[in-house]
Amino acid sequence: MKIYQAGPDVFLPDAAVVGNRKKDICARFGLAGLFPLDNEIAQGDGVSLHIFRANTAMMDEADAIIANLTPFRGPSADPGTVYELGYMAGRGKYCVGYSNVIGTYLEKVASRHSVRPDELARRYVDDQGQAVEDFSLADNLMIVHALDEFGHPLVLPQQPPSDPCRDLAGFEHCVRLIAERQASLSGA
Amino acid sequence: MKIYQAGPDVFLPDAAVVGNRKKDICARFGLAGLFPLDNEIAQGDGVSLHIFRANTAMMDEADAIIANLTPFRGPSADPGTVYELGYMAGRGKYCVGYSNVIGTYLEKVASRHSVRPDELARRYVDDQGQAVEDFSLADNLMIVHALDEFGHPLVLPQQPPSDPCRDLAGFEHCVRLIAERQASLSGA
Repeated sequence: MKIYQAGPDVFLPDAAVVGNRKKDICARFGLAGLFPLDNEIAQGDGVSLHIFRANTAMMDEADAIIANLTPFRGPSADPGTVYELGYMAGRGKYCVGYSNVIGTYLEKVASRHSVRPDELARRYVDDQGQAVEDFSLADNLMIVHALDEFGHPLVLPQQPPSDPCRDLAGFEHCVRLIAERQASLSGA
Repeated sequence: MKIYQAGPDVFLPDAAVVGNRKKDICARFGLAGLFPLDNEIAQGDGVSLHIFRANTAMMDEADAIIANLTPFRGPSADPGTVYELGYMAGRGKYCVGYSNVIGTYLEKVASRHSVRPDELARRYVDDQGQAVEDFSLADNLMIVHALDEFGHPLVLPQQPPSDPCRDLAGFEHCVRLIAERQASLSGA
């Protein structure tokens, strides 16, 4: 079974180290991890389109996605990863994901922007007057419920990990979920 | 032809007004606009899942998506919209989008975070040491190239509009593109 590994891990200075640790975890559970090409970032004409096509081909080949949905440069997950989660959901693939940051989307927005209750509209708004989702979900509802509906609910840590960019306990939890599901489907 | 209208417009205080203007533009070109339910945000158990399922059903019904990819609470597009773009791409639907903010992803990150060149790695990094994509694209490469590969390249304004949250020139451009494509396909 092939698992597409989506996440902003590819932007880390030690992306290759983290990627190899992920590969090892997949192998330990008898699964093949497919890794996006973004970690081979180079400049030049056509490079980005080449990466897009290679990642899309890998997603088409994969049976499932494990998305690292830890907030990236803002209150939400990395948008490249979110696109890939949507693409895999649309293709009918099994969707699993984790975040290494605890808290609701409202709390994450409030930690970065001024957020106030709009009593009349009975909702929270940001400094631009735009509504802030308040569903006690970890991120935008489309992202969180895509996992609920097309795979397994978002995996979150019990305690905040000391290094949220590199902690792989949530990732390993996701790999185990997929391996157990595969074993149960094979046994059926 | 049915067009799913994705965008953070639903979070505006005057979301209904903007939504009606979008509906009118679609109707003028003989197209049906399907609008997500997020603008009927209410609290309570099950509301968010209800919205997710309704939006997913609307996307499944639609033939194309017009995604408002104007940056939202950060350097990138609204993540709910990005998820929907990915979902529609995965379902093989025609993907069109616009942004009302000019500039590259690197410039947008640099306007919000400290960004410096990492000479050794030959790339730009943010204040966390994480690489910043530098492909002269408007957003993450997966988002921008999804439009290139599965629809029409991102529509951008010639001049920055005075109200980027509400300006619909880019939206109208997208509607026209879809109407012209439909006319050309019907005539073929």
